[in-house]
Amino acid sequence: MQIVKDYGPITGESIAEKLNLTRATLRPDLAILTMAGYLEARPRVGYFYTGKTGTQLFADKIKKMKVEDYQSIPVVVNENVSVYDAIVTMFLEDVGTLFVVDDESLLVGVLSRKDLLRASIGKQELTAIPVNIIMTRMPNIAVCYKDDPLIDVAERLIEKQIDAMPVVRKTEKGYEVIGRITKTNMTKAFVSLAKDDV
Amino acid sequence: MQIVKDYGPITGESIAEKLNLTRATLRPDLAILTMAGYLEARPRVGYFYTGKTGTQLFADKIKKMKVEDYQSIPVVVNENVSVYDAIVTMFLEDVGTLFVVDDESLLVGVLSRKDLLRASIGKQELTAIPVNIIMTRMPNIAVCYKDDPLIDVAERLIEKQIDAMPVVRKTEKGYEVIGRITKTNMTKAFVSLAKDDV
Repeated sequence: MQIVKDYGPITGESIAEKLNLTRATLRPDLAILTMAGYLEARPRVGYFYTGKTGTQLFADKIKKMKVEDYQSIPVVVNENVSVYDAIVTMFLEDVGTLFVVDDESLLVGVLSRKDLLRASIGKQELTAIPVNIIMTRMPNIAVCYKDDPLIDVAERLIEKQIDAMPVVRKTEKGYEVIGRITKTNMTKAFVSLAKDDV
Repeated sequence: MQIVKDYGPITGESIAEKLNLTRATLRPDLAILTMAGYLEARPRVGYFYTGKTGTQLFADKIKKMKVEDYQSIPVVVNENVSVYDAIVTMFLEDVGTLFVVDDESLLVGVLSRKDLLRASIGKQELTAIPVNIIMTRMPNIAVCYKDDPLIDVAERLIEKQIDAMPVVRKTEKGYEVIGRITKTNMTKAFVSLAKDDV
């Protein structure tokens, strides 16, 4: 690494010469340093030093984790269902957040356990109120896309103090819900890093 | 690294000699490789190769993150308060999980938003039911300690499908609740890794 730092870009052959080693002996080490990101290899130019520390390289690796690799299946309800039915759906599907769609299956709202709990201690009859009365509605909904870096979405969940975000596809008419990303997914991503599953 | 692999344990001086460098020139590089965990230095013995890859070293780093560095303040209610009051406390404190204690402040139960939502759609009067009727109770409560590796607790949250765990101190009489660790804390830990705040 010191040689590459001082003389780079430098060919593998020249490095081997300076170290009094054969090219073959050196090859696995150069391969490891390149794979690990400390060195970069350019065809017909040679190796150069990336200047990145192990920690920076790990941060790079985290930034490459995408929403689509960690997202869950979304659970949606129509905006006209009752609060009571939404609560039942939440228990049946065992999720903490429901996405609310209109008759064209476009995203119009989000319902958290907190929203439903607030409604349930009110005085109204839960079977008589449609969810579109109590939901958080567009445009006040944070959304994300399947190609977004997972870590950016994690930061937005923290910043906005929400538990989940819909993963959407943008169409001419509005957003189609294609996934659900939650703090559970983030916790799993955190665990997968330690297990080297990334 | 190749020299240390081949000849280790080897002193810094001997490495410098082999590379035709001075000890002083080499020192910063050896320091970096040692800090990064690729090499280990033993006094009066010299450097040897740890055999760890960058990813293993990162996993080691994650395993050193402790619960106490990421935990939040716990919110507790007495086992005799009503379900209605518990829901109000949950909204006032803006938490997803309450810990239930007895008159000696020892942990006797846990209340999640899900538990409270289930109770609230029942037919009972919420101001008339004490939380100890609906809570998850000891010994069915997963607990953790401030010195536990954060990643182990993250795995247990996933495995047990719960959102939070009390951080406890064990006494002769039972558990004192000293903290709260949630999927929000795990999401923050995940974000801190990418920002190199660990």
